[in-house]
Amino acid sequence: MNIVVIAGSVAGSKTRTAARYTADYVKSHHAEHETTLVDLAEYSLEFSDGRNYLDYSGDTGRIAQTLMAADIVLVGSPIYQASIPGALKNVFDLLPTDGLRDKVVGMFITAGSQRHNLIPEIQLKPILSYLKAHIVETYVFIEDRDFQGSEIANDDVHFRLQRLIDDALTLATVYERVRELQDEQYGF
Amino acid sequence: MNIVVIAGSVAGSKTRTAARYTADYVKSHHAEHETTLVDLAEYSLEFSDGRNYLDYSGDTGRIAQTLMAADIVLVGSPIYQASIPGALKNVFDLLPTDGLRDKVVGMFITAGSQRHNLIPEIQLKPILSYLKAHIVETYVFIEDRDFQGSEIANDDVHFRLQRLIDDALTLATVYERVRELQDEQYGF
Amino acid sequence: MNIVVIAGSVAGSKTRTAARYTADYVKSHHAEHETTLVDLAEYSLEFSDGRNYLDYSGDTGRIAQTLMAADIVLVGSPIYQASIPGALKNVFDLLPTDGLRDKVVGMFITAGSQRHNLIPEIQLKPILSYLKAHIVETYVFIEDRDFQGSEIANDDVHFRLQRLIDDALTLATVYERVRELQDEQYGF
Amino acid sequence: MNIVVIAGSVAGSKTRTAARYTADYVKSHHAEHETTLVDLAEYSLEFSDGRNYLDYSGDTGRIAQTLMAADIVLVGSPIYQASIPGALKNVFDLLPTDGLRDKVVGMFITAGSQRHNLIPEIQLKPILSYLKAHIVETYVFIEDRDFQGSEIANDDVHFRLQRLIDDALTLATVYERVRELQDEQYGF
Repeated sequence: MNIVVIAGSVAGSKTRTAARYTADYVKSHHAEHETTLVDLAEYSLEFSDGRNYLDYSGDTGRIAQTLMAADIVLVGSPIYQASIPGALKNVFDLLPTDGLRDKVVGMFITAGSQRHNLIPEIQLKPILSYLKAHIVETYVFIEDRDFQGSEIANDDVHFRLQRLIDDALTLATVYERVRELQDEQYGF
Repeated sequence: MNIVVIAGSVAGSKTRTAARYTADYVKSHHAEHETTLVDLAEYSLEFSDGRNYLDYSGDTGRIAQTLMAADIVLVGSPIYQASIPGALKNVFDLLPTDGLRDKVVGMFITAGSQRHNLIPEIQLKPILSYLKAHIVETYVFIEDRDFQGSEIANDDVHFRLQRLIDDALTLATVYERVRELQDEQYGF
Repeated sequence: MNIVVIAGSVAGSKTRTAARYTADYVKSHHAEHETTLVDLAEYSLEFSDGRNYLDYSGDTGRIAQTLMAADIVLVGSPIYQASIPGALKNVFDLLPTDGLRDKVVGMFITAGSQRHNLIPEIQLKPILSYLKAHIVETYVFIEDRDFQGSEIANDDVHFRLQRLIDDALTLATVYERVRELQDEQYGF
Repeated sequence: MNIVVIAGSVAGSKTRTAARYTADYVKSHHAEHETTLVDLAEYSLEFSDGRNYLDYSGDTGRIAQTLMAADIVLVGSPIYQASIPGALKNVFDLLPTDGLRDKVVGMFITAGSQRHNLIPEIQLKPILSYLKAHIVETYVFIEDRDFQGSEIANDDVHFRLQRLIDDALTLATVYERVRELQDEQYGF
């Protein structure tokens, strides 16, 4: 399968650290899949103007097409002003309606405190749901104190990220099977 | 007072049409206030990288400082992927925590259908609330069919935008008085 | 499988009409499953006081135990004051934390207008998610005008309810398989 | 003014403790107002069936009429299953559409942890907003560890509840003035 890990921030190191750990873990433990790390800090993106995603060029086109080709997307996001960053929202804005259909999407969130624990539930899930993603319901919430420099300093976070990956892979396998069952059922 | 009207989209004409109507109405009916129209389509913005708003230069710095100087902000937004555009969220990301404290913020939303009617309630209000804005609770929801070319073709929309302006002005006057009362109460 | 259809209102006929149609359809087209219709109007429920669900007697105990024994729950709800009725929320309050774990839950909503279209997304899904349900992401939204007396007068609603049932059954089958895979993986 | 403090739970002591403190503080420091404490544990309520609030008898009618007569409502609520209790939602269900119009509503929430910090923002505020309340934007969030027996054991909580009361009173005064200004403006 085609797995894309997004570091959804243009600044700061925590989301990137978690995204790198996640991408590295998939590569080393699930080498049969193709894994791409997309770190927004390394791209120069335009704001979505409603154009078809194939009509963007440069970095903007590249990211949109990478996402569209994914089977699994693992979205890493910090919390900015009680929501996801505008830079990350802009990436979703590049996609067509239903742009995440038949893709499994998991989330890992970095934030200063547990007060923001529900923000992915209310701000990010409805966007993914609108785009028709299959959402891994339990997300990984990582607090600032779980990081030390550019390392994750809490083994429980490692475990939860690994669990997120496992759950996403299982779900993707399962939804493949659902689609096969539905195709049989509707006679396709 | 210092009134800023935002057209929160870099593409499309509907939010801009509503923002222009709103700004023009304030200018012609409330000439005693200073009114600025900020149309995101006319600016070239960087993504927020967490820096202090005074440290941005060019368009990015200009917009952040215009917002910080406002007493009233009237935010116009289309609905992109079940939320506000990344481009508009990015503008809020430029502001400091509590960046809308003591400002009155009203909303007018353009959308394809009533199905999106609650998106401002769940996606935009929590952001404004986090930034400590005084929110005008009733927002103006404008459907695509209310526009004809670059005009608003529904008098009820005119009326509701005027009412939004009146409500924002009344609230701003009133909160000025609240601050005076609180200052007296706490002996400042 | 054990399928429970809830009519989540103590008054009005629309949610009940949709719930009856749903339960009847499951019974006639999927006779291999056990189907129970729970119409809140026919029960006399206590308010949850935090007690273990097994410690309630009478109707309250009966409903809690019926839900806990379900594999699939199809929740029908009207919209009251921009959310689900207190009577339906009270049913969820009877359940333990994680009370919907390993259950597939689908939703059908009756409402006066499309303005309420997102209320299940923001008010009901987070509750189901907290209770660890596997949620059928697309819910059926039925407007008042889709009913005529105690009948559903719109074939598209019939089709969407049937699709909800199919999706719930497929998902339940699939999650059974997920649990088997996970048990193998973790060596249970 | 007519102030109603609600303890929105039929079980447990924390919300009641906070509600009693709040009501007692208003009575002793703002004796010029009429203050009523409504503790849901002391009432036997019916579920709303959509009837006009004046048509309920007994406790149900009494609570509905007490709320309708309030100028300020201070709602205390625990968190049950990631939302407010069904018992408290049912109280709102008794009110007519716009049933909180021209009333100022403040919130104090008791919960096990900061993970639930945003639940009032997403589950309770939209209901109050739908009912047209003037919402005191900042709510008081009280954790389990702030209580000792039937006392609040954290002075900061006392301070925040007092601030909530002050803010509600100031806002109510201010909105009275807004209504006077609007009446003048529209020539009533």
